[in-house]
Amino acid sequence: MSLIVQKYGGTSVGTTERIEAVAEKIVSFRDRGDDLVVVVSAMSGETNRLIALAADIHSDPSAREMDVLVSTGEQVTISLLCMALHKRGCDARSYTGSQVRILTDNSHSKARIQAIDAHRMQSDLAAGRVVVVAGFQGADEDGNITTLGRGGSDTTAVALAAALKADECQIYTDVDGVYTTDPRMVQGARRLDRITFEEMLEMASQGSKVLQIRAVEFAGKYKVPLRVLSSFEDGPGTLITLEDDDDMEKPVVSGIAFNRDEAKLTIRGIPDVPGIASSVLGAVGRANIEVDVIVQNVAQDNTASLTFTVHRNDLSKAKDVLESVAKELGATTIEADADIAKLALVGVGMRSHAGVAATMFEALAKDNINIQMISTSEIKITVVIDERYLELAVRALHSAFELDQEDTEEA
Amino acid sequence: MSLIVQKYGGTSVGTTERIEAVAEKIVSFRDRGDDLVVVVSAMSGETNRLIALAADIHSDPSAREMDVLVSTGEQVTISLLCMALHKRGCDARSYTGSQVRILTDNSHSKARIQAIDAHRMQSDLAAGRVVVVAGFQGADEDGNITTLGRGGSDTTAVALAAALKADECQIYTDVDGVYTTDPRMVQGARRLDRITFEEMLEMASQGSKVLQIRAVEFAGKYKVPLRVLSSFEDGPGTLITLEDDDDMEKPVVSGIAFNRDEAKLTIRGIPDVPGIASSVLGAVGRANIEVDVIVQNVAQDNTASLTFTVHRNDLSKAKDVLESVAKELGATTIEADADIAKLALVGVGMRSHAGVAATMFEALAKDNINIQMISTSEIKITVVIDERYLELAVRALHSAFELDQEDTEEA
Repeated sequence: MSLIVQKYGGTSVGTTERIEAVAEKIVSFRDRGDDLVVVVSAMSGETNRLIALAADIHSDPSAREMDVLVSTGEQVTISLLCMALHKRGCDARSYTGSQVRILTDNSHSKARIQAIDAHRMQSDLAAGRVVVVAGFQGADEDGNITTLGRGGSDTTAVALAAALKADECQIYTDVDGVYTTDPRMVQGARRLDRITFEEMLEMASQGSKVLQIRAVEFAGKYKVPLRVLSSFEDGPGTLITLEDDDDMEKPVVSGIAFNRDEAKLTIRGIPDVPGIASSVLGAVGRANIEVDVIVQNVAQDNTASLTFTVHRNDLSKAKDVLESVAKELGATTIEADADIAKLALVGVGMRSHAGVAATMFEALAKDNINIQMISTSEIKITVVIDERYLELAVRALHSAFELDQEDTEEA
Repeated sequence: MSLIVQKYGGTSVGTTERIEAVAEKIVSFRDRGDDLVVVVSAMSGETNRLIALAADIHSDPSAREMDVLVSTGEQVTISLLCMALHKRGCDARSYTGSQVRILTDNSHSKARIQAIDAHRMQSDLAAGRVVVVAGFQGADEDGNITTLGRGGSDTTAVALAAALKADECQIYTDVDGVYTTDPRMVQGARRLDRITFEEMLEMASQGSKVLQIRAVEFAGKYKVPLRVLSSFEDGPGTLITLEDDDDMEKPVVSGIAFNRDEAKLTIRGIPDVPGIASSVLGAVGRANIEVDVIVQNVAQDNTASLTFTVHRNDLSKAKDVLESVAKELGATTIEADADIAKLALVGVGMRSHAGVAATMFEALAKDNINIQMISTSEIKITVVIDERYLELAVRALHSAFELDQEDTEEA
């Protein structure tokens, strides 16, 4: 008998029929003897409906009142799911974030969980009840309703699992696990049975949308085994776990993540003195623009150039900033390029395996794909390339690292 | 400067445009210098939408979960109204029933208010904020969400007014006050400037749907001056107040209430021994049928007959009960009649004025309206008549008691 925290997202509870299907699934776990705490999101479309009501009235509504408004979405789902469980003879009780006492700070719309009172849930579990909790929400110490930001239901589930010392936290979604890369792009893309928290974090930060980054960080920090599964079909999903869970041989590369959301900016011909990067990036940061990959070079004429990527939406704003910075620093040129793609090879095995970068660059070269930027970390190699070569590059790397083959330890 | 509690019903906040109109009205009170606590219902249609979702899943959903579900309706309105107030530069803060600490018993869907913590509202008022509270809901001592039953927002408003010792509790609705009788039936029906709690209770119990009976009882008990006004047009409305608020001359009759919801049953030829009424009505009560007007007579042959009214929906069930009771008691006949109407003359002035009943019966006789049953209380005379004469009777009485004339003290 295990204690499992399950989370069902908005699509999984998007209609009353789907809520009933979720209830069926929960009952099958109960029949197996598991204790269950279930976290649910708002029915899909509901949060947007509520936001539209607010937009009708105020162009910039108070964050406190927005939290009061949108938190009703999950509150509707918890009650409906309990009714569906009752109908199946399964005792269940619903709790809003503030009822179950998910204490957060008071940063409305992006609150952080500070503490969870597990006592009430534990007594329900002891009484044989399924506990159903509204995701995405909590209350500050004055009882004001807060929300964790969109997608925060994953975080709620992980936090409850940590507080209850659950055996596993299962995130049900519309995909059946984490893939080596996007299956819509690469036919041979393969579901991973396991992935480490670090790898998952790198995948998520590179655009893999399966899980919220904060939830993965939280799960890693509190060592909560996290599993991603499909709400709609049976299957083991992908277990996200600590690297040293067992002594299995790690695959060198676990997956390939990519995104097309970024644009590249270059400023050239800056006299090479200390503090260039901070002058340039400081100005960009003060304009509230987030910078991702950064590369700095010194040219033969002893001038420096700095290249970095920003979100594509921020490109023109960033260019304006660069133009005024360029004058101050005496830089010669500014280049902006929106047609780029970012691509990252992720794998904890890289730590102990040399030559991964070489294999990667060789595979790209073989297909005549020019690498514009390179950035490396312990478990990740990121490259920026021309957007039009993205599919080609992903397929080439997927096959160069044999990601379509089952790993030995999973055979 | 006064402290006013206002309540706006579902129609008054039925769209975002109407919520903005309510915000305008509130701001005009603020500009006058009043402190305001505002209670709102769910947007019209919303509660029914939520109930339909539940009905999709469960034919008899748990009362606890229904309260979790339907209480979201008011929660949406409080946040939207605050946004509309902010837009107008008016500081405001929303509270759910459990946040403002409306403590109730744990009778889900029909909870009763036990205590209200005025402290939080008072500090908001002191800070110059409008306090916006979700009507119809509270929480029990374990923090479970409860609702006061439909229409309970009136009760919330009165209870808050009592707890805050407000100067007035204003109920905004789609009518502009309490009328001498239904204006759709009698052209000369006139809005009353004042009515006593007792009269209002009698009017409400006779089918006048302007206010919830519990709210009026509550207001009377805690001596909260209550005013019914229109959300849509300006006007003084009707003030519901204590009888001895001033020494004005009371009108003999304040209004005429009526309904067509009842049916009449008669059981005849029962041997006249003590306990007949309790035998008959006890059996009816055990079948969960509520009885309204009751009349017992003894005939010349020393047998008794008992006539009473029940809700029309209960007529056939009540008849079945009577048939088995008739056998036990040796009664001779049972008669059932659905085509009746009940009509009541209400007025605290009846206490000190003789001859009201005589005037009433005379007016009905003049129009050849036969009275089937009569029942009297201190401030009310109720008659049951053939349904087809209802309009005629109401008009005759309205004119016999000169209800279309202004009262002296209001001139």
